[in-house]
Amino acid sequence: MSAINIGLIGFGTVGTGVARILTENRDILHARTGLDLNLRSVADIDIQTDRGVDLTPGVLTTDAMAVVNDPEVDIIVEMVGGETFAKDVILAAIANGKPVVTANKALLAGHGGRIFRSAAARGVDLAFEASIGGCMPIVKALRESLVGNRVSAMIGILNGTCNYILSKITDEGISFREALAAAQESGYAEADPTLDVEGIDAAHKLTLLSSLAYGMELDLAHVYTEGISGIDPMDIEFARQFGYRIKLLAISKLHKRGVEARIHPTMIPENNLLSSVNGSLNAIMVSGDAVGDILLYGHGAGMMPTASAVVGDIVDIARNLSAGITGRIPLLGFLPDNVRKVPIISVDELDMHYYLRFAALDRPGVLSKISGVLGRCGISLQTVHQKGRKTDGAVPLVMLTHQAREADIQTALVEIEKLDVIKDRPVLIRIEEKNNLDASA
Amino acid sequence: MSAINIGLIGFGTVGTGVARILTENRDILHARTGLDLNLRSVADIDIQTDRGVDLTPGVLTTDAMAVVNDPEVDIIVEMVGGETFAKDVILAAIANGKPVVTANKALLAGHGGRIFRSAAARGVDLAFEASIGGCMPIVKALRESLVGNRVSAMIGILNGTCNYILSKITDEGISFREALAAAQESGYAEADPTLDVEGIDAAHKLTLLSSLAYGMELDLAHVYTEGISGIDPMDIEFARQFGYRIKLLAISKLHKRGVEARIHPTMIPENNLLSSVNGSLNAIMVSGDAVGDILLYGHGAGMMPTASAVVGDIVDIARNLSAGITGRIPLLGFLPDNVRKVPIISVDELDMHYYLRFAALDRPGVLSKISGVLGRCGISLQTVHQKGRKTDGAVPLVMLTHQAREADIQTALVEIEKLDVIKDRPVLIRIEEKNNLDASA
Repeated sequence: MSAINIGLIGFGTVGTGVARILTENRDILHARTGLDLNLRSVADIDIQTDRGVDLTPGVLTTDAMAVVNDPEVDIIVEMVGGETFAKDVILAAIANGKPVVTANKALLAGHGGRIFRSAAARGVDLAFEASIGGCMPIVKALRESLVGNRVSAMIGILNGTCNYILSKITDEGISFREALAAAQESGYAEADPTLDVEGIDAAHKLTLLSSLAYGMELDLAHVYTEGISGIDPMDIEFARQFGYRIKLLAISKLHKRGVEARIHPTMIPENNLLSSVNGSLNAIMVSGDAVGDILLYGHGAGMMPTASAVVGDIVDIARNLSAGITGRIPLLGFLPDNVRKVPIISVDELDMHYYLRFAALDRPGVLSKISGVLGRCGISLQTVHQKGRKTDGAVPLVMLTHQAREADIQTALVEIEKLDVIKDRPVLIRIEEKNNLDASA
Repeated sequence: MSAINIGLIGFGTVGTGVARILTENRDILHARTGLDLNLRSVADIDIQTDRGVDLTPGVLTTDAMAVVNDPEVDIIVEMVGGETFAKDVILAAIANGKPVVTANKALLAGHGGRIFRSAAARGVDLAFEASIGGCMPIVKALRESLVGNRVSAMIGILNGTCNYILSKITDEGISFREALAAAQESGYAEADPTLDVEGIDAAHKLTLLSSLAYGMELDLAHVYTEGISGIDPMDIEFARQFGYRIKLLAISKLHKRGVEARIHPTMIPENNLLSSVNGSLNAIMVSGDAVGDILLYGHGAGMMPTASAVVGDIVDIARNLSAGITGRIPLLGFLPDNVRKVPIISVDELDMHYYLRFAALDRPGVLSKISGVLGRCGISLQTVHQKGRKTDGAVPLVMLTHQAREADIQTALVEIEKLDVIKDRPVLIRIEEKNNLDASA
């Protein structure tokens, strides 16, 4: 039995899950791989709390760097999170020639350039399946299964917290604040939910996905990112009346002039498969020239699903170590020399369909004023809908546009907001029509 | 540029797709892998027909075995199909120490024991991702991504022909014969559709999946297999009234006493994600102890989706050849020494929910006669439904049972069929309730 020694840095939720799988499923891991995946060291600042994992005495330590520097440790599993100490751990491991497994999307999307370059230069493997979509094997799909495809688009629900909150608002008609509180109570949202609800976590993931799919340099800064904190139950109800569901979608499409990469609440047809992805679940659809559309679905977060992906990565690397090889697959799916700088197209330059809602005073001529501005901005309407009770003297006026340029829509909204018949800021939600989302074909 | 020479045997639909990807996407394959995947030889009995692929002159040959024996060929891609010549090709390639890629589920499920043993003994890789679910990376998921999981169940729609036909009957209310004719006309069914519509193709796939998931020996003979040729639009309509859809499901579950493995038309709740998998699309849900439920969805057949999976396998093997390694991953996901003989439990011994439909004469006492038999056999009813017009003097009498033993149901049906108030054979369709299909959780 060939032993591979694992150094686990970070004994939090996912780290604990990894330790559980490595100990409780050691037999099946050995039956499948022939390898003995030995949890040699577990480092954490808290080594007192009992995590319910049956560790060999002496395995726990508070000295993470001693683990990273231990010549007997073959693989470093970074489960610290954050962008400071985690980065030190990973760079030190790479400098020591040790392969790394991480789930740290924030670090990789934000500072991945240096990390991936260091790993490639030192010739060590760096695996990060668990950083996107938890247990869904999307990194493996892009780097391996779909290797023969020109990937043209990816559309996904990549943040379980947001999907949980939106499902809750949809099912119960409660406000964003109430749904967020429920999510926090159930453990689906953190005390500070900013990274999740403002779409930043999804942007981290989409940054990595776009690089894997198109061979482009990581470019988190240019991903358009809008969260769900402004979603009103009224818009979810209107969406339903028009046959749509609202999801926080991560959308990436490859065009000749660049890549579009955006995170925002999106209306999608209710018969689209992504509309059926509810609660904290995640899904991602990938379109390729050979494969057509393929969809992966599963738990995008949580102790054991995420740990499952980490262990898959550990085994991938252990198999390489056991065979005496490294660099079998380029870290980001393309040979470093073939990774190009591809511009991300500004959302202003995209043409989309829009849902607009105005809080308008119930007076004659309102509709003509609003539609006049839209017309002057070159925006034509598909549907106008005025119904429902007055709130604060205003009635909701809902419009669905034909395809329009985002910049024109924004110009029009600024002008409409200035009209004396308009109360409150206009609401804008982008629509992805079925022809752009063939998953349900 | 490191060249890997590929010998393609069989220039039919999928073979043509493979040749297209290798030629048309040679640039992106090289950008991702650094390898030059060179289509050195293409063998087929028909080398006259123009398949629209731009092949180097001299590549086409009618002599398949010359390709298999060519010392310059590094990988053999068997796209012949069938269980005779394809088997000769694969065994000869293995004997020559050449790794093999195939999509031949019938051959592997039926004669895989000898083939996998030969490959393992000779130390050559054998890849077969495309044989299950077309482009869906289910083999890779089971052998690699989910390696840390104890897999407990798999439920899938694995035959696109049947799903197309069932979707057609559901949407248009036409008969099986009409839907089959439409499927044949659209190229979704073969002239002889037996392998597909009788569930045999799905049984081939489930046999391979069960081996990959549980480390059990291939055991096609004991998979319970029932096709869709007996499906009546009336049952699809009744299913809808009860909130179900009818799908040809492949179901495999691991129990302490063995494995259940069955293919049959199945009613599933309409809000289950699998109910939304329509047309020729496939999906498979896998349950593991760490991962929870994960679902893969995509085109299960067709030239380019299947070829996409074949090319993924070619690249996997080419990466191994390039690194000078073989046997990195056990062929069936477990080391050969750890593959056990696991009994498949007879469907008679399973407890399920049932939909029963009787064509009963419209006379007093009919219901009591039928329910009397069911009661004596220990079967309790959840719903009884009698409605609809008389046909040939009989009315449809529909019953949903509580959980019951299949053997008891079969005993009861034999007895009920003998009743003088019953016309025609009773119809039985098994139900999978939501708690067994958590994909939509």
